Order: sequence, then C-alpha cells, then structure tokens
Amino acid sequence: MSENSIREELIESIRTIPDYPSKGILFRDITTLLKDAKAFRRAVDALVQPYAGSKIDQIAGIEARGFILGGAVAHQLSAGFVPVRKKGKLPAATVEQEYELEYGSDVIEMHRDAIQSGEKVILVDDLIATGGTADAAVHLLRNVGADIVAACFIIDLPDLGGRAKLEKLDVPVRTLVEFPGH
Amino acid sequence: MSENSIREELIESIRTIPDYPSKGILFRDITTLLKDAKAFRRAVDALVQPYAGSKIDQIAGIEARGFILGGAVAHQLSAGFVPVRKKGKLPAATVEQEYELEYGSDVIEMHRDAIQSGEKVILVDDLIATGGTADAAVHLLRNVGADIVAACFIIDLPDLGGRAKLEKLDVPVRTLVEFPGH
Repeated sequence: MSENSIREELIESIRTIPDYPSKGILFRDITTLLKDAKAFRRAVDALVQPYAGSKIDQIAGIEARGFILGGAVAHQLSAGFVPVRKKGKLPAATVEQEYELEYGSDVIEMHRDAIQSGEKVILVDDLIATGGTADAAVHLLRNVGADIVAACFIIDLPDLGGRAKLEKLDVPVRTLVEFPGH
Repeated sequence: MSENSIREELIESIRTIPDYPSKGILFRDITTLLKDAKAFRRAVDALVQPYAGSKIDQIAGIEARGFILGGAVAHQLSAGFVPVRKKGKLPAATVEQEYELEYGSDVIEMHRDAIQSGEKVILVDDLIATGGTADAAVHLLRNVGADIVAACFIIDLPDLGGRAKLEKLDVPVRTLVEFPGH
C-alpha cells in the first residue's frame, strides 16, 4: 500500500469526538484504530518502517496511550521498552522533568537506570499536540544519555506546534496523519 | 528454549523492590524485563504461544502496564487492541464495573462499542494478584458479548487467589512465572 492509501485508511479509522474533554475541542480518538487489527498493524509497521534496518535499543512510550503503541513498536523492532510515567508510579529511583500545561504544570518520570548511556531510543506516543510532554520526555531521555533517533506519533496536530518544538531540539519527528485546527 | 529456561530467564529479569508501595510488600517490577529486549520478546511469544494458531480478534489490556504487554501481544497475534481503563479516561460511551479493594472500591471502564458480540478476546495484564481488576474486566467483556479465550499474565502471585477467582468464572488462565508469598 502507498503511504497515501495507508494515510486514508488511518484517517477513516480514527473517531472524532466533539467537545471532549471540553467545549470546542475536537478529540481524536484512536481506540477505533486500535481495535481495527489491520489498521493497528499498518500504523505500527508504517510508523517504524524507516528504522526497520537500524539497531534500535529502546522504545520509550509515554503513559498511557503511548504504552499501547510503544509496546507494539518495541515488539516490531525487537527492542526493549521503557515507560515514561506520571509522577509517583515507578517503584525504583527516578529522574523527573517538570513541564508547563495551559494552567499550571505537571511532572513525568523515568527510572534512572532505564537507559544505558549511548543507547539508541525512539520516543513513541499516539499524538503530538503542543509537544509539552514529548519535549519533557526528550530532556529526561538525554539526561540519562539516550541517543534519540526519532520521535514517532500516529497523529500530528500541526497548528499546536509540537513538531516544531521537537525539531528545534534536533529530534527527527515522524507522524502518519495530520489534523489541522485544534 | 524450554519453558523452564524461559521461566528462569524471566525470573532473573524481574526486579524485586522491598517495602513498595508499602511496608512488608515485595513489589515485582517488570520494567527491568521490558527494557531487556530479548526477555520482553520471549515473554510475549511464550505467553501467547498456545493461541498462535487460533483466530483471536481482540486483546483487552488493563491500564497501565497491561497496555505495554497488550500492545505487543496484539501485534504478535495480528489482533486489535481494546483498552480497559480507570474511570473517566475514555472519550465515548462506556460500560463500567465496580470492584472491591482492600479499603473501599474502584471502577474500570471500556468503550461500549469496543467489542462486537462473539469476538474472541484475550485479557492481558502484567501480573495477577487478588484478581480484583481482572475479575471486573471479565464481567465488562462478557457484558458486551466477548468470548473470552484466556486471561494472560507474566506473573502470578498464587497465594493471593486471583487465578482461582478467574477459573471459577470459567476463564482459562495462563501465566509464565510464580512468586509465592505476597
């Protein structure tokens, strides 16, 4: 299948829910893509196709939907998996990174021993919007010595600027479908 | 590799953290297994090996660690993935199920349209302890018409009775390693 027909199939399999989680927001719901076995498999395969020949050591997945996609990507690339979690969820010693939200801030964590210095890592989440969490994850990963090969997302909301934010950090960004607007 | 040597490799890759999350608890931390690419792949492959020849429609993964393992299992079996989440996390219409905790209760949810009646489903989580969440997930899945083929967990804490609880509901349970005690 061409990238274009994969893109069309994926767009059709994503459900849009108006006014969720708040009025005026169009929520892009990937659960309809995930339960469609063919679409899920195509999304995973297409997302990591550029890295299929390289040695990737770890997939870092962002809680919670990034765990689903990241687990599948790790399996596809025969890589390990490292969870990037909300604060207070990991049992061993962690490194943490604060990031700004529209109102206030939040913190993500990773185990301090999750990555060995120099390991090649792909960051995975379902969607990139403002890129706040992904940006914080990039700082965490580099903090423990990761060599970030790429950040991969099924969905890009380009008007929110997340891709540009990661590219400024010299992280190559790969996405499969774009939804303009917010 | 024999089941016994896989079991030994997996046990070695799981880290035990004493007194987490509270005094007297030995927490079995699978993040050290997940970041070990070979161990992670062996765990996924061994877990679903009995179902590799059958048609499995959906993998239902329990938030949050069950998302990582479930994503990989869905990819391995070319199945779809359905998230079983904590209350208030899913954007479309849900079915919900309450279950008891040591003190108080909690609620899990699934999208009402996540499963088509008669679909063959495997329930996945990293660990079964008392089986409270898994039991609630079985009720949710049957509520929407799922045909539950099995419930799969990497780790069984047999003294806490979860396996027996699921088997009473006629759900075949598959686990890879056991840790006696609590």
